[in-house]
Amino acid sequence: MTSPFDVTPDELRRRTSLKWRTYEPDVLPAFVAEMDVRPLEAVVDAVHRAMTTGDTGYEAEPTSPQGTAYAEAFADFAARRQGWDVPVERTRLVPDVMLGAVEVLRLVTGPGDGVVISPPVYPPFRAFVEHAGRRVVTAPLTPAGRLDLDALDRAFAGARAYLLCHPHNPTGTLHTADELRALGELAAHHGVRVVADEIHAPLVVGDEPFVPTTTVIPDAIALHSASKAFHLAGLKAAIAVPGPAARDLERLPEIVRHGVSHVASIAHQAAYRAGDAWLDDVRAGIRANGDRTAAVLAERLPEARWDRPAATYFAWLDLRATPAVVASGADPARLLLARGRLAVNPGPTFGEAGDGHVRLNLATAPSILDDALGRLVATLTR
Amino acid sequence: MTSPFDVTPDELRRRTSLKWRTYEPDVLPAFVAEMDVRPLEAVVDAVHRAMTTGDTGYEAEPTSPQGTAYAEAFADFAARRQGWDVPVERTRLVPDVMLGAVEVLRLVTGPGDGVVISPPVYPPFRAFVEHAGRRVVTAPLTPAGRLDLDALDRAFAGARAYLLCHPHNPTGTLHTADELRALGELAAHHGVRVVADEIHAPLVVGDEPFVPTTTVIPDAIALHSASKAFHLAGLKAAIAVPGPAARDLERLPEIVRHGVSHVASIAHQAAYRAGDAWLDDVRAGIRANGDRTAAVLAERLPEARWDRPAATYFAWLDLRATPAVVASGADPARLLLARGRLAVNPGPTFGEAGDGHVRLNLATAPSILDDALGRLVATLTR
Ligand SMILES: Cc1ncc(COP(=O)(O)O)c(C=O)c1O
Ligand SMILES: Cc1ncc(COP(=O)(O)O)c(C=O)c1O
Repeated sequence: MTSPFDVTPDELRRRTSLKWRTYEPDVLPAFVAEMDVRPLEAVVDAVHRAMTTGDTGYEAEPTSPQGTAYAEAFADFAARRQGWDVPVERTRLVPDVMLGAVEVLRLVTGPGDGVVISPPVYPPFRAFVEHAGRRVVTAPLTPAGRLDLDALDRAFAGARAYLLCHPHNPTGTLHTADELRALGELAAHHGVRVVADEIHAPLVVGDEPFVPTTTVIPDAIALHSASKAFHLAGLKAAIAVPGPAARDLERLPEIVRHGVSHVASIAHQAAYRAGDAWLDDVRAGIRANGDRTAAVLAERLPEARWDRPAATYFAWLDLRATPAVVASGADPARLLLARGRLAVNPGPTFGEAGDGHVRLNLATAPSILDDALGRLVATLTR
Repeated sequence: MTSPFDVTPDELRRRTSLKWRTYEPDVLPAFVAEMDVRPLEAVVDAVHRAMTTGDTGYEAEPTSPQGTAYAEAFADFAARRQGWDVPVERTRLVPDVMLGAVEVLRLVTGPGDGVVISPPVYPPFRAFVEHAGRRVVTAPLTPAGRLDLDALDRAFAGARAYLLCHPHNPTGTLHTADELRALGELAAHHGVRVVADEIHAPLVVGDEPFVPTTTVIPDAIALHSASKAFHLAGLKAAIAVPGPAARDLERLPEIVRHGVSHVASIAHQAAYRAGDAWLDDVRAGIRANGDRTAAVLAERLPEARWDRPAATYFAWLDLRATPAVVASGADPARLLLARGRLAVNPGPTFGEAGDGHVRLNLATAPSILDDALGRLVATLTR
């Protein structure tokens, strides 16, 4: 069996994307959410067919049979993989997850309203909410990376919406059905609407299942995309899925669909239709890399603390107790870049509670991961 | 010489885009801004290379050398084709022209401010401005399709920005240097900022040149993209170019770049770098199709009035005096669809002064254009 992670540094360095073109060649990049994978052939073929036949116009209208092709491909995938019954007719395509989240937040909140987020969390959550003219209110996760119901209760008192990250980036937390139920009750009590960014949902890597938010919170609205799980960040498209009691998407302006890339839609459809085996190989590779990371850290850097992610390809490492951080008091990402020539995402960019943490990207070839872990250990044990 | 318009209806009907999947198979689509062209090989190759090598991550940071590749390709193209010196370092990438126009309008206007548009104009102008929480003020073009300085003077009194369409969709008007100068003076007088959508600029088809707005109005900001001229609407990307006196883009939030598709950027770069000959063939084909349309209408439907476009691939036809419209009083687009099974864009969707007009897409194979003109003539002479 060849793994999608069977890639070499030389190949990767020829890529022109953010991961491979931000730092000098001696820096090993393990930041940003791009995977070091071989592409899924069905996607390559579908895009090539579209390009060679000039099928590069606009995405078809939702009222035409072709216009629901993305939603149908996603719904079949969700049914097959997550046992989730997606209401195709009530979904809406959006340009990408973040622009979609903003459009949904605009439907359920007004200018200046509070929108709650739970740091440490994907940095654009704050930036996009602020750019949309809403007020960011924070309800940090617990130290164990779970939803903190008391903090949410306090934050919801001054807010109209909650931007949930499920699975949670960077911690890899999968919220349980019980947690989602408690969240839904709290939100209903405060008149707060839940908008769930579920982009990492296909990347379950542990034994816990992904529970779709809208199956537990009926008036929630979820956002999905093939871009993260299938390494298609450069071909943007996403879908908003309403819960059974959420009617807001009916008010989504038609022009939101203008931003949807037809070729990205074709790529995502191919991924959802034909990507199961590739995705399972990717998940197996991430899991194996998680094992590797756990073994190396336990043996060589026991002061590093982390919980294995239940989903996503991130390791959220608490490095506060490591010798180099203790000795220098410096941000570990800065030490790793300066001394180890390893680029990771600095914890503080994820907000409160990110101090002393880094996000390490596990989605790479085992040998490249070994190089990254070697640099990490060597830098932080000194 | 084979023309990019050497395409057959059978091939086109296999496309899955808006143009080919909105109507039943017996309807000939001549609406929406998609071209019936063979793709540019350099674009097909560049995208295929990106897909096969997994170069499908995020667009690189503007601070890295790779991050200015799109701007440099565009600047070289603009210098070569339009004699225009584009300030690469001061440009910004945006997800597409309309989302870019909205972000620029948000920089130069506040909530509730008036934004002027000149109907008949591309319908999303109104919808996007309204969705951005700005007030639409109209200053219609003159009956000859030129900027109406008196109407603009009145409209600017209650506005903060003007969304210029240059070349103008649907009329194909190229604004002259003198017109732009007068517009700039009027705008300066009223404290109105000019935002110029120049997406159709490469599609000059007459003898008049395209004069970049920012070369005449120093504090204007222009938006460009390879998507229209190179038939890449399905791979969205665009660039905002400030005039020498416009500093606003420095305040553009970094997250706006999040929406940029890396693969679209690669496609557009290939088009700008290697598309000159293909583009010239396309322009020649559109010009020939314009000749054909003029000849057919002069001979068989002399009541149709129109001015040949100086740019764009649209024919903006005034059909009010045609026999069928006179007899029925009906919207000609409705007659054409119902009786002629020809789909064109209805004039009223372009706003005031669109009544009795239709927009016909000329970017197709000559034989398909003949079919369209045959349907048009047969329907409207009855
Ligand atoms: C939680 C989360 N949401 C959204 C995104 C980005 O999605 P998009 O590019 O579709 O906006 C990412 C990318 O890493 C992410 O981690
Ligand atoms: C004047 C004008 N602006 C913008 C667009 C669309 O550009 P984008 O898809 O980059 O928003 C079009 C498409 O036809 C257009 O005619």
